[in-house]
Amino acid sequence: MYIDDLDTPVLVIDLDALEHNLERYQRYFDSHGIGLRPHIKTHKTLAIAARQLAGGAAGLTCQKVGEAETMVWGGLQTDIMIPYNILGKPKLDRLMALARQTRITASADSAHTVRGYSTAALEWGVTLGVVVELECGHNRTGVATAADALALGKLIDSLPGLELRGIMGFPTPPAVRPFLQETIHAFERAGLPCPIVSGGGTPYALEAHLIPELTEYRVGEYIVGGEGHLRAGRHTVEECALRVLATVVSRPTEGRAILDSGSKTMSASTIPVGDGQSMGFIVEYPDARFYGASEEHGHVDVTACVRKPQIGERVQVLPVHLCPCVNEHNEIVAHRAGRVEAVWPVLARGKVR
Amino acid sequence: MYIDDLDTPVLVIDLDALEHNLERYQRYFDSHGIGLRPHIKTHKTLAIAARQLAGGAAGLTCQKVGEAETMVWGGLQTDIMIPYNILGKPKLDRLMALARQTRITASADSAHTVRGYSTAALEWGVTLGVVVELECGHNRTGVATAADALALGKLIDSLPGLELRGIMGFPTPPAVRPFLQETIHAFERAGLPCPIVSGGGTPYALEAHLIPELTEYRVGEYIVGGEGHLRAGRHTVEECALRVLATVVSRPTEGRAILDSGSKTMSASTIPVGDGQSMGFIVEYPDARFYGASEEHGHVDVTACVRKPQIGERVQVLPVHLCPCVNEHNEIVAHRAGRVEAVWPVLARGKVR
Repeated sequence: MYIDDLDTPVLVIDLDALEHNLERYQRYFDSHGIGLRPHIKTHKTLAIAARQLAGGAAGLTCQKVGEAETMVWGGLQTDIMIPYNILGKPKLDRLMALARQTRITASADSAHTVRGYSTAALEWGVTLGVVVELECGHNRTGVATAADALALGKLIDSLPGLELRGIMGFPTPPAVRPFLQETIHAFERAGLPCPIVSGGGTPYALEAHLIPELTEYRVGEYIVGGEGHLRAGRHTVEECALRVLATVVSRPTEGRAILDSGSKTMSASTIPVGDGQSMGFIVEYPDARFYGASEEHGHVDVTACVRKPQIGERVQVLPVHLCPCVNEHNEIVAHRAGRVEAVWPVLARGKVR
Repeated sequence: MYIDDLDTPVLVIDLDALEHNLERYQRYFDSHGIGLRPHIKTHKTLAIAARQLAGGAAGLTCQKVGEAETMVWGGLQTDIMIPYNILGKPKLDRLMALARQTRITASADSAHTVRGYSTAALEWGVTLGVVVELECGHNRTGVATAADALALGKLIDSLPGLELRGIMGFPTPPAVRPFLQETIHAFERAGLPCPIVSGGGTPYALEAHLIPELTEYRVGEYIVGGEGHLRAGRHTVEECALRVLATVVSRPTEGRAILDSGSKTMSASTIPVGDGQSMGFIVEYPDARFYGASEEHGHVDVTACVRKPQIGERVQVLPVHLCPCVNEHNEIVAHRAGRVEAVWPVLARGKVR
């Protein structure tokens, strides 16, 4: 069977492009002595996680306990980091059950989170690794000063059931190096261990070597690209492995085409392109602008296209942001040069807990 | 079990509020002699669709063939409209199989779509109802003039296997009445039947009577509200039946709280509030501003809150747009006054085909 035989919309992955991306990023991180810890939130599948580990990854990153459970119970008993404040007895119990089976490191940015980890680890009789999360400019979670990081590190180091494993941040452009250095030095002066210095994010992945202190790096979309990475020059069209196959269902005006792929298929993510927004790059019509969507309709401006798509025509679309896009789908069809090799269930889809 | 016992994030529905909304909208449409054809894309569950039908709905609306299959094979062999151009043999075969089992009406805005319907209906030996879609200001699909609608109506009426059932549009504010009237008159003059004049959209639902030509109305979010409907005065907080239970996982600064519910839980939908955007209304903290999110983090500005939420505290959040929010979840927990009565699978989740 070929992908041209599949009904649309459908999410397909080009195995040649996937393998190429896996290899080129693994080679980069290997060459700089930085551990590659792929984030499974991008693909949410056992199949790709297993390939990442087989290719030399130092472990996996999962964003929620349910994602880590999917990996571990799926047979990938590897070293897993969950860079998230995990709170409340139901999740802490599940986290400790995982820590019994494999090496787990969670993050914390508050004493509340750290104390919860310790209480649960004691109750379960396990050791949980903990890293202090640093605020690195995303204005999300994380402590904002080296002094706060040190105080939290001391607390982690002092509490039973916990093993202080260092620090992490997101994102980690080269500009955050001074904050990382200051924190590392504070830990050193206090005699605290800091074996892990973990950076993250695809946009700065190939600049990780500019922060020599990094021991490992969390990265998700490197394997598949997407319109944002294409336009930023990080991936070529050919390297954008994960695509939505769509069909033109309406041409209501000369300048507008409607795809069967709206926000429920593409995700609602957009990037600025020109003086507007884009929800996807249409490979066959690079001059088209996928400017908006409702849930089941993709709205495309085809004014600039010399040849215009016709009703019933199929196109390949590179989504803007693959992580939420994959989360909309139950399966990914894996192919090589268009020939279907496998259908992968998106097992970690929707794991919000 | 009570919803306070559920781990977060979790989507819960208040049965009292749901039943209240079902009744008040059914009463409105009954009083004006307009058929209520609820759109199942909002809830995607058999449980709510069955209640809508039991309460007096004239049938259901589904946006994709897979949604209609979920309803029909789930036992709800009711009158279903799919207001979408359905193209390609795989979907047309499934559509005709449904039309063998129950009354189905699909829409079309092109001769291409209409001819596909006729060919498939002939092959399957069934009759498919077809309505002409009118462009009603959304700049999405639909023909833009009464003359184009008439031409398409004539084609539908002339082709075997099809039954011309009238016209539909989305959205249908009172301002579109002249276009509807002009099209109806054109059909009348040409001797074409037009038994269905179908409007749609929750924002204008309670103004449907201002277009007396409407025979039926498609509406989804009326049953559950949401922050947009709350701020527009269409639903009170109490009438917002569907909520995300979330936990505060971080308070990195005095003014910021982070919830365990990001765009993967809430959907990425936003509405303008004040000089920014909102991704949800926090019931316990009406002065807070849920101003942004990453996939697993909800970013909340709590500067304006006199009492501020603490780490570990649980809150109820009214999402902005419930249709994409529900599509992120595998189940909805139904409760009455906090006591859990059922867990409903979101069976039509992810039905993009």
